[in-house]
Amino acid sequence: MKRIYIQDVMARDGLQIEDQFMPTEKKIDFVNRLSDAGVDKIEVTSFVSPKAVPNLQDAADVMTGIKRHKDVVYAALVPNVKGAERAAACGTDEINLVVSVSETHNQKNVRRSVHESFAGFQDVAKYLSGTGIRINGSLATSFGCPFEGKVRDEKVLRLVDDYLKLGADSITLADTTGMATPKQVNRLTTEILNRWPELPLTLHFHNTRGMGFANVMEAIRAGAVRFDASLGGLGGCPFAPGATGNICTEDLVHMLAFMDYHMNVDLDQLLSASKELETVLGHEIPGQVIKAGKINDLHAV
Amino acid sequence: MKRIYIQDVMARDGLQIEDQFMPTEKKIDFVNRLSDAGVDKIEVTSFVSPKAVPNLQDAADVMTGIKRHKDVVYAALVPNVKGAERAAACGTDEINLVVSVSETHNQKNVRRSVHESFAGFQDVAKYLSGTGIRINGSLATSFGCPFEGKVRDEKVLRLVDDYLKLGADSITLADTTGMATPKQVNRLTTEILNRWPELPLTLHFHNTRGMGFANVMEAIRAGAVRFDASLGGLGGCPFAPGATGNICTEDLVHMLAFMDYHMNVDLDQLLSASKELETVLGHEIPGQVIKAGKINDLHAV
Repeated sequence: MKRIYIQDVMARDGLQIEDQFMPTEKKIDFVNRLSDAGVDKIEVTSFVSPKAVPNLQDAADVMTGIKRHKDVVYAALVPNVKGAERAAACGTDEINLVVSVSETHNQKNVRRSVHESFAGFQDVAKYLSGTGIRINGSLATSFGCPFEGKVRDEKVLRLVDDYLKLGADSITLADTTGMATPKQVNRLTTEILNRWPELPLTLHFHNTRGMGFANVMEAIRAGAVRFDASLGGLGGCPFAPGATGNICTEDLVHMLAFMDYHMNVDLDQLLSASKELETVLGHEIPGQVIKAGKINDLHAV
Repeated sequence: MKRIYIQDVMARDGLQIEDQFMPTEKKIDFVNRLSDAGVDKIEVTSFVSPKAVPNLQDAADVMTGIKRHKDVVYAALVPNVKGAERAAACGTDEINLVVSVSETHNQKNVRRSVHESFAGFQDVAKYLSGTGIRINGSLATSFGCPFEGKVRDEKVLRLVDDYLKLGADSITLADTTGMATPKQVNRLTTEILNRWPELPLTLHFHNTRGMGFANVMEAIRAGAVRFDASLGGLGGCPFAPGATGNICTEDLVHMLAFMDYHMNVDLDQLLSASKELETVLGHEIPGQVIKAGKINDLHAV
């Protein structure tokens, strides 16, 4: 069966919207547990302004404090050259750049036009050139914008092209607020992979309206093999209090494992880490398999 | 696009495990709202022993109290001839019989062997013969048993055959505790529809481990067009406190509507009924679109 790559974003996408600051040693522990479990890539933190995201103000301490596994890529979100310098100083393997396909969403998110964001990325790419640090280009709101609504596929393709011209090694299409439908995912993933068959393409789905795993299955059918997900399903939606955010890593691995997809991940270690996450955070998290058990956890008669 | 039939089970499958009894007039109101919204079939109640399911002790009052729409099928679960007599006296359109594919689950559920269940169904079928009341044959644990684990496809096919020999007009395959994977759903649905291409086949999925909508999409791909779901996602899993039960009706309609599937249902009326359900029950329900809004509910800049 096909090899599927599991990439966890809990430590960045999940933690950034939590009410409470998670202590640095706990963050390091969870990243280490994800590494031990065999996740292929971990978005460890974000080198943004500590004022903008106080929860990740310990980015450098986390990135330097974690154990490194040779088969795991340790990535960090970076908004500008200053962030790239901080990330590089900590031995970050991969820089994640983010721009929204939607102008309105990009303005709301980073107070820049899409063009201005790319101009800044040019400086980051120049700085990183020759360092061996990889660049992943993320496109937020690739499947729809909560302000503008529909996003045209051509616009997504054009921005993928812009990222590749910039020197990005890989691309992520993010369904930032859970607007993608399975049909749309199949169509856009097919278009991208037809145009760039060798592109390392990640799909980053949110389960805001329940379609997350249906979208994963359609993306796999269209040829995608790399997926972002968040331990415990941690994360949320800034526009809808109480709504679900990122798809859940261990639930994703559970579904794919029982269809015999090949992954490098130990599901039981993930489940154990997710239960610990719920304990540390002190509130319920969206993960469903930690509640219901695996489908082969049978009950005594 | 394909016509998809939406069948709601909230008033039976959802309410039976609620802690509080819902007043009869409220039940009637919700069934009427589902009818008004254009749902194709409603499982209105269950004519079982009031001691076994106290929440549905008002089965006759609900079934006689509701408004009838000519395009809606009003169904009820019935365990035996006595239940069938009560259902028939209330003008029930369709009797739903349930047996588990798994012997152990059937013993746990109804204290009978599968063979004994079918013997009882013979009497029900004889009683209903000539009444014009339709029979739907449901197979619980069609995709796995929480006690026995895997269920063989051949066993499911044999029991479908038994139901059809009994005179069943339609069949439901139920994933009673959310054990089905998309791959398995595609395979079993394809097998059933290859053998009985004209069979009105319903898929009844639970979202216990997050795979509900991925399973729906695979079932549609394999040719299925009829789905059970529960308003608000009401329901649960007797083996896992806090776990999700039935897939959510309005979230299902939302997903399919935005892929241009043809349904008879008004999504906004469903959403309004689901919000009212949450208010009446006084606790959060699993529906996600009532929290996050529809994908075309845009935010002001």
